[in-house]
Amino acid sequence: MPTAEEQISDQRLLKGARARAAIARHAADVASAEGLTGLSLGRLATDLGVSKSGVATLFGTKEKLQLAAIESAREVFIQHVIVPALSRDKGMPRLRALIDNWFAYIAEPVLPGGCFRVQSATEFDSRPGPVRDALAADRADWFALLEKEIRRAQDQGHLTGHDAHALAFQLDAIVAAANTAAQMGEDSALTTARGIVDALIGANA
Amino acid sequence: MPTAEEQISDQRLLKGARARAAIARHAADVASAEGLTGLSLGRLATDLGVSKSGVATLFGTKEKLQLAAIESAREVFIQHVIVPALSRDKGMPRLRALIDNWFAYIAEPVLPGGCFRVQSATEFDSRPGPVRDALAADRADWFALLEKEIRRAQDQGHLTGHDAHALAFQLDAIVAAANTAAQMGEDSALTTARGIVDALIGANA
Repeated sequence: MPTAEEQISDQRLLKGARARAAIARHAADVASAEGLTGLSLGRLATDLGVSKSGVATLFGTKEKLQLAAIESAREVFIQHVIVPALSRDKGMPRLRALIDNWFAYIAEPVLPGGCFRVQSATEFDSRPGPVRDALAADRADWFALLEKEIRRAQDQGHLTGHDAHALAFQLDAIVAAANTAAQMGEDSALTTARGIVDALIGANA
Repeated sequence: MPTAEEQISDQRLLKGARARAAIARHAADVASAEGLTGLSLGRLATDLGVSKSGVATLFGTKEKLQLAAIESAREVFIQHVIVPALSRDKGMPRLRALIDNWFAYIAEPVLPGGCFRVQSATEFDSRPGPVRDALAADRADWFALLEKEIRRAQDQGHLTGHDAHALAFQLDAIVAAANTAAQMGEDSALTTARGIVDALIGANA
């Protein structure tokens, strides 16, 4: 049995972790619309009705807050786009599910600014440092996942004649462009983009 | 003959216009890498060694500075990508030149952060207001130009079976993705993207 003192300490840790996760999630919301550059400890404290010193204690620097927002947004993407696709058969069905889930994620954004990856990659692509490194690592994971399922689909006899990396690049480019266009208010963009993807990898069964 | 007083007044206007253009161009440089959000009158004044009040007199608000940066970046794009293409024959040759010039513009960026349109569109797509309106207008012009040359190419017997808007969407998406990937340091991205474009509209003669 833990002592009463240990229990209190555990509860404090848990409370800190929960507060940290809630603030990071709100930071991801804000950054999805206004960019990682626009994040500040003070802004988040005001939004959430907590003290700035409390936020500073949990995160330290603006850069650490940006990294926490990236991690939180990554978890949202994994949960909404990747996890549901993993229940589909490997190869073509899973590839199709990944793209369909991503389109759905863009059509009804979970984060207010749409797809965080699209937003943040262009925002930080010219600024070397830990934030760009984190975005590049996330991007590399995403491409590796797409390419793996494309290669499996090719082993199943689909998508032959495509270079796996080039096809992943193309699929990513089309859905990313659809996100920007949809956020810009171009209502037909998702239909256009879905049509392009169907022509590339075949319409969903 | 203008009076001496009129000449001095004209020179002052000219000097003001030149200073305004120089500051707007620097603002476009900064925003291409760090975003329009990161612009500030004080930062630009420090960079250029002028007084903050002087910059404030010329631009007024941060939003007006952002709009001036967009206009300046638009002129750079027109000068480097569009104008040289207009000397090519209408239709297929001009479409090909627009895309090739855009790739060249990304391979050796004129603005330090790469293509301003790609950067700023994703940055402001979720923030309604004059800045997003200016970016949307620029974007609409660009798509109209691409679609016009695609339709002309189709009248010449090329690119048949493509929807002009969908093809413009696709070309824009691929080159925009190449810009982000290149800025992220992915050296092979331009080769990959050029290959995709060649497969779409035919290799350059």
